[in-house]
Amino acid sequence: MTTHITISKRAQALTSSAIREILKVTERPEVISFAGGLPSPATFPIERMKQATDKVFAECPHAALQYGPTEGFTPLREWIAARHSKNGVTIRPSQVLVVTGSQQALDLLGKVLIDEGSKVLVETPSYLGALQAYSLFQPAFSAMETDEQGIVTDALTPEKLAGARFMYCLPNFQNPTGRRMPLERRQELVRKATEAGVLVVEDDPYGELSYQGEQLPSLLSMNPDNVVYMGSFSKVLAPGLRLGYIIAPEALLGKLVQAKQAADLHTPSFSQRIVYEALQDNFLDQHIPKIRELYSQQCNLMLDALDKYFPAQAKWNRPAGGMFIWVTLPAGIDTGVLLQQAIEQHVAFVPGAPFYATAPQTNTLRLSFVTVPAEKIESGMKTLGALVTAAVAANSAETTTA
Amino acid sequence: MTTHITISKRAQALTSSAIREILKVTERPEVISFAGGLPSPATFPIERMKQATDKVFAECPHAALQYGPTEGFTPLREWIAARHSKNGVTIRPSQVLVVTGSQQALDLLGKVLIDEGSKVLVETPSYLGALQAYSLFQPAFSAMETDEQGIVTDALTPEKLAGARFMYCLPNFQNPTGRRMPLERRQELVRKATEAGVLVVEDDPYGELSYQGEQLPSLLSMNPDNVVYMGSFSKVLAPGLRLGYIIAPEALLGKLVQAKQAADLHTPSFSQRIVYEALQDNFLDQHIPKIRELYSQQCNLMLDALDKYFPAQAKWNRPAGGMFIWVTLPAGIDTGVLLQQAIEQHVAFVPGAPFYATAPQTNTLRLSFVTVPAEKIESGMKTLGALVTAAVAANSAETTTA
Repeated sequence: MTTHITISKRAQALTSSAIREILKVTERPEVISFAGGLPSPATFPIERMKQATDKVFAECPHAALQYGPTEGFTPLREWIAARHSKNGVTIRPSQVLVVTGSQQALDLLGKVLIDEGSKVLVETPSYLGALQAYSLFQPAFSAMETDEQGIVTDALTPEKLAGARFMYCLPNFQNPTGRRMPLERRQELVRKATEAGVLVVEDDPYGELSYQGEQLPSLLSMNPDNVVYMGSFSKVLAPGLRLGYIIAPEALLGKLVQAKQAADLHTPSFSQRIVYEALQDNFLDQHIPKIRELYSQQCNLMLDALDKYFPAQAKWNRPAGGMFIWVTLPAGIDTGVLLQQAIEQHVAFVPGAPFYATAPQTNTLRLSFVTVPAEKIESGMKTLGALVTAAVAANSAETTTA
Repeated sequence: MTTHITISKRAQALTSSAIREILKVTERPEVISFAGGLPSPATFPIERMKQATDKVFAECPHAALQYGPTEGFTPLREWIAARHSKNGVTIRPSQVLVVTGSQQALDLLGKVLIDEGSKVLVETPSYLGALQAYSLFQPAFSAMETDEQGIVTDALTPEKLAGARFMYCLPNFQNPTGRRMPLERRQELVRKATEAGVLVVEDDPYGELSYQGEQLPSLLSMNPDNVVYMGSFSKVLAPGLRLGYIIAPEALLGKLVQAKQAADLHTPSFSQRIVYEALQDNFLDQHIPKIRELYSQQCNLMLDALDKYFPAQAKWNRPAGGMFIWVTLPAGIDTGVLLQQAIEQHVAFVPGAPFYATAPQTNTLRLSFVTVPAEKIESGMKTLGALVTAAVAANSAETTTA
């Protein structure tokens, strides 16, 4: 029989995330994949989650299985507000909305803040999932200049900032580059954005994963009236629960709550109550150092392998936290082509191009060092290094010939 | 410090659901509320869910806590496809997308199918949450004529159908009216929509709650190439898990998957695996009859109370399933005003007006008989009946005077 489907203009522009498509290929067990941003399952606190779940079933099973308020489970909102009340700032529970993973925060912010053609400032490169979520609402992206310390605040001129609906920032161990913004730039960024009348959106899934444990003040703490903060339990507990949150000025939070209601009524009561139980007695303060230690070790293994197997013409950063290393190859090398060769040899990574809202740099790539166990990092990087070395040699010969 | 927020046009139009606002007032324990559409917690299969959760923790805790595929957990998709392969139709797992509650299905369908000004056909009245979700994408709603048997298919003229992106239907025990469409009308509806090139969206959270157990064939089964079906575990297991699904032709499903990826990456792996375990050994076939029996009893109690306490000028239906009774009072009575009086006397219901996309009938109201325990139905209805009787008398005096 006949099918009658007309796809909306907004959805016609939608494409599947390049990363998700690559992940499908790399699910084969023989592939050593540095592509995925999946936290190491070795860090999941299974026993703690089990105890928390047992407690919820023993104490409040009916409430955990019933509909709940759109804003989220009140004790969890209180916990989140208290956790972010530091560096001289008080966050009220009424500023907190619990969401179904922080990807949903991106969708809700796009819905509530972006009209067709709205100017939205993004980093170069930026988080692919955000670009994808915002794109549905057809903004005009404007790229902010960046360097190895993140957004170059000197380049945030009045002209650059003028008329922007918001500025999307990942100050801590950014996905995809792993870079972190220093204190002075954070202060300068919040000051300039506020003066220019531009709302700041701070996406912070990796802030807790600082290997040395020291954390820089959030943009939120510098002006909670003009910063929207997005947090997540995916990297400090487990991503399969899909639990994140937004902290926003109450005036904006009300609209986000209405959008959340239309999107899925509320975040599952069941998982909210389980996570709330798991967080008790400062559990994260015991648990997060273990994640930091593992990721720091794996990061060092990958950095050693880069030093050993990658040619001098390749450049990369040395992250102080998070899950990613960003590699830049000589101009002229297309990492999309390189990925095809790598997959044939059972190694995978993510090409950098999809992370750019404008003017993609096709000679870049992202490596994740957290999903693959330590013993496979060396062998995977050896294979990849040989491919990169060959590509650099071929590119250099071509350049010379030309 | 200064706040700088510009709300998108789409979100400016967004208002909080009238029902959710009422629910907040009626959370006080002294209020007997017939307002909420909350399933009776007495029906939640706590022990079964606990066993299923234990099994997931014992057998696959890491996978349950890790990111998963956007489409959903494959065995659950297979289960859903098999469950809907009946009445001569085969549904493939590749047609199934697991979503975070069926409210999310409404949001994704709106995103993927509605452009600003798109014609969308809806029942009069229709489900408020759908009107709210679709409204964000600024469609032009066109109301379909209905009677106590649902959509009047004779009124589905070529002019009415022409150019509509889709037709949104709730054939089983509709929220808010409790009505069910008979077989002949279902066939006629699918035939006419397909001939006119209009996609049918079938929302079916209550189909399993037929008190006598007999179920009419779904619209999906009548033409799976041109019907999108939305199902939910909220009314047959528990709503706090937020688990629903969409069955759609593959061509549309691909776009819905992309929109889902941008919305929240995927439905929680944890809850999908637990529900999948809970469903084994035909659990629903033992469990759903208990829900039907309880709701049928409570429906009868409310119908008895309506007969006893409500005046002859009030009209209502006698549902064969589901959770709601729809009451129509004489023209001139505003149930919004009546609700204020009712809340003062600690009884609540939902006024009917917000359920209309166009031309609201302010003399209607929705009663839910499933959330309030049996012993409170009689006393709550007695209070409400007295208020309605007084309102009818006053209205009749006014009409006579005029």
